[in-house]
Amino acid sequence: MTYTFSNKMGNLAPSAIREILKATSQPGIIPFAAGNPAPEAFPIEAVREISARLLEERPVDCLQYGITEGYAPLRQRVREDIRNRLRIGSEEDDLIITSGAQQVVDLATKALCNEGDVVIAESPSFIGSLNTFRSYGVRLRGVPLQADGMDVDALEAILRAESNVRFIYTIPNYQNPSGVTMGLEKRRRVYELARQYNVLILEDNPYGELRYEGEALPCIKSFDTEGIVIYAGSFSKILSPGLRVGYALAPAQIIAKMTVGKQASDVHTPIFNQIIVDEWLKNYDVAAHIEHIRAIYKAKRDLMCGGLAGTVLQFQRPAGGLFLWCGLPEGVDMLGYARRSVEKKVAVVPGVAFAVEPGDPINAVRLNFSTPTDAQLKQGVEILSMLNAEL
Amino acid sequence: MTYTFSNKMGNLAPSAIREILKATSQPGIIPFAAGNPAPEAFPIEAVREISARLLEERPVDCLQYGITEGYAPLRQRVREDIRNRLRIGSEEDDLIITSGAQQVVDLATKALCNEGDVVIAESPSFIGSLNTFRSYGVRLRGVPLQADGMDVDALEAILRAESNVRFIYTIPNYQNPSGVTMGLEKRRRVYELARQYNVLILEDNPYGELRYEGEALPCIKSFDTEGIVIYAGSFSKILSPGLRVGYALAPAQIIAKMTVGKQASDVHTPIFNQIIVDEWLKNYDVAAHIEHIRAIYKAKRDLMCGGLAGTVLQFQRPAGGLFLWCGLPEGVDMLGYARRSVEKKVAVVPGVAFAVEPGDPINAVRLNFSTPTDAQLKQGVEILSMLNAEL
Repeated sequence: MTYTFSNKMGNLAPSAIREILKATSQPGIIPFAAGNPAPEAFPIEAVREISARLLEERPVDCLQYGITEGYAPLRQRVREDIRNRLRIGSEEDDLIITSGAQQVVDLATKALCNEGDVVIAESPSFIGSLNTFRSYGVRLRGVPLQADGMDVDALEAILRAESNVRFIYTIPNYQNPSGVTMGLEKRRRVYELARQYNVLILEDNPYGELRYEGEALPCIKSFDTEGIVIYAGSFSKILSPGLRVGYALAPAQIIAKMTVGKQASDVHTPIFNQIIVDEWLKNYDVAAHIEHIRAIYKAKRDLMCGGLAGTVLQFQRPAGGLFLWCGLPEGVDMLGYARRSVEKKVAVVPGVAFAVEPGDPINAVRLNFSTPTDAQLKQGVEILSMLNAEL
Repeated sequence: MTYTFSNKMGNLAPSAIREILKATSQPGIIPFAAGNPAPEAFPIEAVREISARLLEERPVDCLQYGITEGYAPLRQRVREDIRNRLRIGSEEDDLIITSGAQQVVDLATKALCNEGDVVIAESPSFIGSLNTFRSYGVRLRGVPLQADGMDVDALEAILRAESNVRFIYTIPNYQNPSGVTMGLEKRRRVYELARQYNVLILEDNPYGELRYEGEALPCIKSFDTEGIVIYAGSFSKILSPGLRVGYALAPAQIIAKMTVGKQASDVHTPIFNQIIVDEWLKNYDVAAHIEHIRAIYKAKRDLMCGGLAGTVLQFQRPAGGLFLWCGLPEGVDMLGYARRSVEKKVAVVPGVAFAVEPGDPINAVRLNFSTPTDAQLKQGVEILSMLNAEL
């Protein structure tokens, strides 16, 4: 039989990164292409203790159906935590637990976008989210990134030109793939432009806690007096990505519609996983754990940046997050560079994977420093340095 | 701000059942409205042992990112299991692990349907799936159910009349909500009609193992020489719904497109949960466990059917599954009956929740016998009998 797929899915290819990861997961390949937490960053003892206790004391709660909105104590705890820590969340907001922050992007797009509607994203941006937008037949417009975040003049030009923009998608902290952090003024300006042009903002903040220097800047959601910001949070980078627990904080009407969408998608996020997260937040010193993983990643970032300094790769040392975005010298072919790098047993992601619109001018590769061991970091950086010297 | 939602989601209400469940989850309400496994049906000792061992021996595997297709040993094990047990799965098929079988319905619809395309379902049918179809702007057509499954003449009439049918959705075993099992001849006929009219079949089989008498009939997928059947399986009813692990077996091209969709929805099903299921299948006597839960549910079914026999409620004793579909006498108002029943502290679901098209002639309520304790079953049946006597 010849299969016909929906228009929205017909042309959507698998994420280039996930495909690269599969291709490069053979032993012996140095994993600079992934985005995995370091194995030593997982609070294994805590998860072990919590799981054993839960399955001893209240096993049926862990295995039975839950409600779509999420495990009530966890919803309450996260709301309080982000209100205290990030100063976000008003009486008009509500919170839903999702199957990772990726599902926030999915449900927000499902709730808000018809095919042909426009979503604006920083260019380059996270391929996982871009593919979610594409999977709903959304038309993407990219705003070039500068050293302090998106080019707000370009953003305004798009808002002026496009009549059916539904929301602006941004990763303000340690953006994937660029590592860029949006400055305070730009955060305010993006919020004001959204308000002025009557569009929503989807603020995705998976890396916010992975800050290695400087002060935390306020979330865009913290300015949200008008109810126009959907905030996506995640436990993937501070606890475990394999548990798939994230959340959205947004105006209650939007959360209600996302809840209906989630009911139709996966009914609810696994309840055992939600209770594990709740017990971890309740009984463990999460702040100390975050300090611990910051120290791990800061050292790895410094190893990578130190090793590549002075080569032809152009990069800004990111103040947080997991990625180093390396511009290639003019005339160097990005795909060729990535291919040669893989031949030398170092997997990197060609920057074109993160293009928002076809033809976005990108000549860079994304390197990740959280996945490799320190030995792999040193070896991989040496290999790339030799490769760079041949350019 | 006034929020505008997508056309496909704008009119979609939360599942009536989930709302009823929330409203009736106060203590003291007898839960005939739910569809939860009985607490005593969970293999708690097994999950406890497996979790403790996994987090001791290979914690990082449980907490790290996985690949979208699912945990490879589980995919392989399920493929072999269903090939041996159900005689389904060819060389052209592939298998993806999903976040419950609900996600199979979601991903299949996303991959195959444009807004306005037609999906055919048994009427009445499972509201969760119907809402998934609606959430993609699909147009639903209902085929009346008879005692041995859908009315195949009505099915053919719809196939003849509609030009853009994408698939036929069916629950052949112990259908939700009707309890009906499709006979062997009809299974063959539905397959032949799908082949003849060049449409796919989505065969949803969550209750297949919950058989209390008679012989198992072959799955429609077992006839699938043409590659037109997507088979949805689930561990929710035999292991745990809270873990959210299901799967789809379908032609590889369709699985590939569903995988792209899943990547954009939730990246992957939680890996800890997948490994727990894999270890359970590998190391425990699953057949004995299924015998154990069959005995539990058969006794509960008999308690409910015995108690309601001779009242004005019209029902067929279901040969399996979790539900009793009770027709009301002519002239009795279904919503009024459901409301009075809740007033008397017995939660039931008015049948209209399962209507495929507005105006489907339904005058019935759905009762569930797996969730209540035996004491609740006896008490609830007594209350309904008194209510019935007043009709």
